[in-house]
Amino acid sequence: MIILGIDPGYAIVGFGVIGYDDRSMKLTPIEYGAVTTPAHVKTELRLNEIYDGICELCERFHPDAISIEELFFNSNAKTAVNVCQARGVILLAATKANIPVFEYTPLQIKQSVTGYGRAEKHQVISMVTTLLELKAPPKPDDTADALAAAICHAYSSSSQLFGLK
Amino acid sequence: MIILGIDPGYAIVGFGVIGYDDRSMKLTPIEYGAVTTPAHVKTELRLNEIYDGICELCERFHPDAISIEELFFNSNAKTAVNVCQARGVILLAATKANIPVFEYTPLQIKQSVTGYGRAEKHQVISMVTTLLELKAPPKPDDTADALAAAICHAYSSSSQLFGLK
Repeated sequence: MIILGIDPGYAIVGFGVIGYDDRSMKLTPIEYGAVTTPAHVKTELRLNEIYDGICELCERFHPDAISIEELFFNSNAKTAVNVCQARGVILLAATKANIPVFEYTPLQIKQSVTGYGRAEKHQVISMVTTLLELKAPPKPDDTADALAAAICHAYSSSSQLFGLK
Repeated sequence: MIILGIDPGYAIVGFGVIGYDDRSMKLTPIEYGAVTTPAHVKTELRLNEIYDGICELCERFHPDAISIEELFFNSNAKTAVNVCQARGVILLAATKANIPVFEYTPLQIKQSVTGYGRAEKHQVISMVTTLLELKAPPKPDDTADALAAAICHAYSSSSQLFGLK
């Protein structure tokens, strides 16, 4: 199973493509990085870049699932509007590519990767690096968060399988 | 000039297409209504319906401009996330159709249509009905708001023209 994890953002959208083998429970990193959009460019053009970037990832890797963090409102209203708008075009890109979307809360993702829902950012990065046997921690942090979302879906889907047995 | 006004929403996206003649300052209603999405359907599918609906309007009417209300965060966080996500795919649809987007605050729209930035909803509906010489107030309210956004852009763009003279 190939999973595309996404950390929704506006200036930086982290992504992480991983392979997951249900039987061996083996995780394999395939590709990871970030779609970035330039500041001082109109919102709709930045959303267009994000949409095209996610469409391209779907075409290149044909993921079986997209795993994305749920958004909650924070104190910076202007940023939140932009991030939500970006998340909208990401969900649209997934739908246009016919890829099922799975949403997880930050707590679920941290719990799944570190065993602790209130883990610090550096603990998440460290566990992602270890679980995927990466030579160095993924940069930027948004990429690590995207890989964590992908890992969360891998583990969740296999635990659902076990639940059915 | 043809203007597509949009009232961004998630369950209901109001739209209003109007013609505006710069010289006579005459407004003409062309088409108005709402793109609605069913409840109990996955978010990404509802966003897809909104995107396709706006793309269809752009293809049918070839607007010269899209006028859309700016969003501000309200108290209902869950609704706000969904509305912002919907607004993201609306902006994307405009960009994919190469139509320039103009954003106005609710205050600017009310000011432009009623002459008073803090006007009540029923005053906006009443003025939209009068200015466009409609036989009955447009329904639902979201449609009236979309027409108000379109009228706001008509008046703003012509006052910009006068400013240049």
